[in-house]
Order: sequence, then C-alpha cells, then structure tokens
Amino acid sequence: MSLKALAINCTLKASPAPSSCELLISQVTAALEQHGVSCEIVRAVDHNIKPGVMSDEGEGDDWPRIREKILAADILLLGTPIWLGHPSSVCQRVLERLDAFLGETDEAGRMISYDRVAGVVVVGNEDGAHHVSAELFQGLNDVGFTLPASAVTYWVGEAMQGTDYKDLPEIPEKTAQTTKTLAANCVHLARILRADRYPAS
Amino acid sequence: MSLKALAINCTLKASPAPSSCELLISQVTAALEQHGVSCEIVRAVDHNIKPGVMSDEGEGDDWPRIREKILAADILLLGTPIWLGHPSSVCQRVLERLDAFLGETDEAGRMISYDRVAGVVVVGNEDGAHHVSAELFQGLNDVGFTLPASAVTYWVGEAMQGTDYKDLPEIPEKTAQTTKTLAANCVHLARILRADRYPAS
Amino acid sequence: MSLKALAINCTLKASPAPSSCELLISQVTAALEQHGVSCEIVRAVDHNIKPGVMSDEGEGDDWPRIREKILAADILLLGTPIWLGHPSSVCQRVLERLDAFLGETDEAGRMISYDRVAGVVVVGNEDGAHHVSAELFQGLNDVGFTLPASAVTYWVGEAMQGTDYKDLPEIPEKTAQTTKTLAANCVHLARILRADRYPAS
Amino acid sequence: MSLKALAINCTLKASPAPSSCELLISQVTAALEQHGVSCEIVRAVDHNIKPGVMSDEGEGDDWPRIREKILAADILLLGTPIWLGHPSSVCQRVLERLDAFLGETDEAGRMISYDRVAGVVVVGNEDGAHHVSAELFQGLNDVGFTLPASAVTYWVGEAMQGTDYKDLPEIPEKTAQTTKTLAANCVHLARILRADRYPAS
Repeated sequence: MSLKALAINCTLKASPAPSSCELLISQVTAALEQHGVSCEIVRAVDHNIKPGVMSDEGEGDDWPRIREKILAADILLLGTPIWLGHPSSVCQRVLERLDAFLGETDEAGRMISYDRVAGVVVVGNEDGAHHVSAELFQGLNDVGFTLPASAVTYWVGEAMQGTDYKDLPEIPEKTAQTTKTLAANCVHLARILRADRYPAS
Repeated sequence: MSLKALAINCTLKASPAPSSCELLISQVTAALEQHGVSCEIVRAVDHNIKPGVMSDEGEGDDWPRIREKILAADILLLGTPIWLGHPSSVCQRVLERLDAFLGETDEAGRMISYDRVAGVVVVGNEDGAHHVSAELFQGLNDVGFTLPASAVTYWVGEAMQGTDYKDLPEIPEKTAQTTKTLAANCVHLARILRADRYPAS
Repeated sequence: MSLKALAINCTLKASPAPSSCELLISQVTAALEQHGVSCEIVRAVDHNIKPGVMSDEGEGDDWPRIREKILAADILLLGTPIWLGHPSSVCQRVLERLDAFLGETDEAGRMISYDRVAGVVVVGNEDGAHHVSAELFQGLNDVGFTLPASAVTYWVGEAMQGTDYKDLPEIPEKTAQTTKTLAANCVHLARILRADRYPAS
Repeated sequence: MSLKALAINCTLKASPAPSSCELLISQVTAALEQHGVSCEIVRAVDHNIKPGVMSDEGEGDDWPRIREKILAADILLLGTPIWLGHPSSVCQRVLERLDAFLGETDEAGRMISYDRVAGVVVVGNEDGAHHVSAELFQGLNDVGFTLPASAVTYWVGEAMQGTDYKDLPEIPEKTAQTTKTLAANCVHLARILRADRYPAS
C-alpha cells in the first residue's frame, strides 16, 4: 500500500508569489515521490484558517478541509519561514488548529493523529532554524505526531544577510543531503507505524 | 509631561468574548493609570492585520493605524495567551508587522521605535509563561524596544489543568504584586528614557 | 528479545539528595519495567562529565562510560528540572556530549545513535515544561533519536509557587496517565525500530 | 563617575584555548572602553562554579567571587557559544547561580541586581543566535537586569557550515556595527539608571 504525504507551506505570501519555503518543501516532496509517496502541498495563507483551537471554527473556516487532508495522510510536512527567529504566524495558526486533536480520540482511545509521522522544513535569510524546529517538534509531538530521526531539513544564511534560498545559485549540498535523509526517514517510520500501530490507550 | 501606553491583546477570541489576557492586561493598565499614564487597549484579532512584514500591506490592512498608536506611545504592552507553549498566532503576527521597524530610522539614524519601553503580559491554563516572555522579549528587543527590570507579569495554572485566569476566585497575590512591579518599572524607565534619549547612530 | 532503557537524571543535586526529577523518572522506569524493559538510572551530576563536545574529553572524563550505556540501550530517557524556564545546565552538558554523535557513523553510514528512541521527563515548581521538552526534543532529534507520539511526561505547579513534585500528597492523575502513555509509546516504537531499522545512508 | 562592566565568557574551552566568544566579547569591551567604561572579562569555565541555585554552594565554590564582581559592575555582558541551538551548559550554570537574586533584596526591598544593565553576545558556526538571545534576555530579566534597545551582538555562519568567528578573514561589517550599538546603548542606559534608580518596592 502506498503512502500519502501532506505538506503545509506556512509562508506569509499568498500564491502565486514565489516562496523559498515552497521550494525547499518541493525538494522534500520530490524525494518522497521517489519513494513512491503521493504528495500534496497546501499553502496555508491562501486559505481562511480562522483563529481558534477547535476543529471547526464555523462559517467560512477553511480548516476542516485541510484537517481532513492531514488525517488522510501518513506523513505531515510542516514548512515555515523564520520571522524574528520564530515560526511564522501562519505556522502557529496551523499548530493552534491542530491543538484540537488533544481532545479527539480514535476507536482505540488514542489521540486521533496517532501513527502519523511529521517532518519539518525551515527556511530563513539568517538564523533560527534550530529553534523553529524545536517549536514545531514540540507542537507536533504534543498533538500526537511521531518524529523520525533527523526530522528536519533547513537552510539559513550567514548572520544579518539577506539572500533568499530561492535565489541561491544552487542547492547547498548539505541541505540537499539533509532533505534526502528527512524523506527516507519519514517514509521508513510511516511504513512501520502503519504496519504496527501504537497500542490502545 | 504625561506618559502614554498602548496595550495589544493577542487573544484568539474576537470582542466581546471574555478574555483572560484582557483581564490581566487591564490590571496592568489600571496600575499604570495610578502612575498617571493614559492607556488604551487594542484587541488585535478584532482588526484585519494582514500577513506580511511591511508597515503597510495595502488595501484593507488595519496595521498602519495600530502602528501609529504604538509610535505615539511611550510604553507598549504586548499581551498574549499561550497556545502549545507558544505565543499566539495573533501575537506573532504583531511581531511580524513590527519587524518593519528594522528598516525604519528616525532623524538621528536610530530605529524608529527607540526610547520606547515594552512590557509583557502572559496568561495560560498551564505552563509556558517563561518561554513566551523569552520569545516576546527577544522579538520586541530586536525591533528596538527597551525592557525594564521585571518586564513581565503572568499567570498559569498547574500542569495539564484547565482553569482560566478570568475564572479564578481571586487574583493570585504573587501575580498581583508582579503586575504592580511591572507597571512601576515601565513608568520609571519610560520617564528617564524620554528625558534622556539613546545617542544618535 | 528484551529492551533496555537508560534514564539520565539531570538534577543539580548530587546523590543521595532527594530529587523530584528522580521520582518522576522512576515512575516512568517502573512503567517501562511492566513492559519487560530493563532500566538503569544515572544521576549525571554524580559523575565528572567534562565540558566539551567530543565523545572523550580526556583524563577524568566520566562521559565515555555513560555514552556506552546510551549506545547499549534501545530507549534513552532524558529527565531534567526546570531552572529559569530552561533545561538544567547538567542537561545541556549531556546534550553537548551527545553532539559528538553528529560525526560518528555506523557500518551503514548512519548516525551511530539511529534506531534508538528518546523520551523526556520534566519537573519544576512552576512553568517551563513545554519549552524544556521543545529544547530536548530538538537536541535529541538533532543527534539521531526518534521521538514517539506523546514523548514527554511532566509536572509543574501554578505560577510562582514553590511546591516540589516529590512533596505532593499524591501523584497527579494526569501526570500518572501521561507517564504510562510515554512508557507504552517508547516501548512500541523501540520494538518496531529494532525489528526494522532506518535505511542505510 | 565612571562605569564598570563585567563580561562573562561561557565558552566550553578553558584558557588559554582561543575562543570565538572571547573575541566578540573583547570587541564589545573595546567599544565600551571608548565610552570610558572599565571592563573585566571572566572565562567561567576556568572557575569552579558549582551546580546549584544559591549564592554560595559551599567549599570550593568560585561563584561568590564572580557574584561580587557582577554586583560591583553597572553592566553585565553575558557571552555564550551556541551548542545544539542552545546557550552553553556553562552559560546556563551562570544563569542558575544568578537565580539566587530572586530571593535577595536591597535596602529598598528591590531585587539586589536592580539598576544594572545586561548585554548579550552570541557566537556559533551556524544558526541559533536569536533563540540564545531570547533565553538570555528572559533569564537575565527574570533575575533583575534591564535590557537596552538592541541588547545583543552576534555572528553565525550559513546553515551546516563549520567556520569559526575567530577564523574569519575580517570582522563582518554588520556584526561590527551591531557591537558598537550594543556598547553605546548599554552605556547610555546604565548611566541614566545609575542617576535615577527604580523605585522602592
């Protein structure tokens, strides 16, 4: 049985503006596809994800459809730019909506998100990738996701410089290798968790 | 000359929903008013603060008016609930819009926000106040604000419990004392910085 | 084949001083033992873990023996008190020594720590558990560990109060449940990763 | 009256090993000296700073002497390398010992550290400066220090690269400018706080 991945790009820029985060995410999904995973990328800011911490915040809320895609996937990739050293406001909005999983259980009494794997993608001009991945690892783990070894790929430039990942002359080799490892580990862990699920609560 | 304070409440709930964060903020502004400071509270989620990192993100953007209020004040109070241990998405949105200050200078070549003091207010059911204040201290300092001694007041409950600050039978004494100290220190520092400004760049 | 767990207690207090962190760790190891896991607890501050980021920092360094225990185990529990909202200095020291794994590969070209699962235990008087778990999740993941769903158990008290976990009249029920879940998930993930390892690099 | 600054270098390497953190700290102290500030640099790892959170942890503890120097100074510079994206274990140890200030008051009932200004210096091969400054801002503020506008200078390289600050062919211009601003703002704020102290508690 083939795996599915959903990637959420938490850039502040609506489509069709180019996004460094989209670029790095697409490199992860390309690597996932080489493992036979079918992938979809959602740009969160294109949707009306209402403020709140429930799975449905009422009229006009686009979250319920995104939530369905997350639950239909084996792998969630959460990608964000870095602003002031933090995950973007759009990314924190996504985490807040995922917070509802804390109160939703499956037929085995486990959090509804269990057995799903999460990977993290972080891009910035300079500085912040480790902290942003810490915030996302903890947020995603709190709401039930499992994190594979080497669960993040990232790029940031030298301190206080302004180049974008999308404007680099070529993909930095270390980021390319990290991207490949992230994809391989997500696939491995998602496969074995699908075959052998966490115990009932 | 009297001082002005602007408080931004970054709750996820639009007015007129009750907000624990609003309650604690209003206790700080009450203390500030006892020092003769004139205060205004803005609930950020009631306004259309568009995603982006510029001072004006174009049509329909409510940020420029809030930005004017910030620059007209001597003291900025940034108040946020805690979600997944992090500042709210609304709070990070405010920080992202403040990020534009990094490129805006006054006639002395200093960041346009200089000489202003920031205080932080954090409320949650359980856990997260120190980290949220760390994120806000750093974000606010990065964009030019000065942080007085004891620059935060907060309340959180015991691990994994669900009581709201607004539903407590009485104000916890330690939080009340911390609120008073925050107000006194903001006022003191804002006064001396107004009288004696940072040097030109 | 039975599993092994090593727990590292990063309290600031040398043995035999009572330690809240030791108490919560011992509740996790008791739960692990019910799953048939053999457990050992090391109190880091009792040993001379020299400053540095190599696997052996020379004469008098006790880290190499602890490192061997980590590599001999399937599950690493990292437990820490919260000081100033952060992991303890002893815990950061352990992470710094684990940093050497970044340069050490096994026969399959993977980081030497791969296929091992990590769980986190956090205790404080008040506030900080989510941030501390974020720091530990990211640090442990960076050096090759896999994080199961619900990878942390914790307790903290209400804001600015001073009760210790070890002095509570009884184990808070939510912490007890979280401890049980942490143990069950560590065991499940360690079992399936031992049977089916991450691919070669 | 002239000002005094104490800088604490939290490198993991004992003297006389070269330290990138020492280099950047010395650039800040050179700038402070141009403002007439007398400066001293202490390399924390050269001293036996015992684990604990009291001002004196007993026999062999070198902290009391360092604590005296901190209280004798108007400006504290806390400098740290980045390890795993975090402040060094030596830096967290210093914060833990400063934690004792929370229980120590002066004759005006204020925390004993009040009226002192803190600046932060962060150096790493890659990534982490904003988060480390967040941790230090919050830790230092919690124990009574005031943070001037632009309270940090830092350097980190591009993602996953390994160059040290001390091995750069020249000082990056943006870091040099930031260092100068940090020094000027620390001096200004320390001067006005010495002339006009926070109110009694």
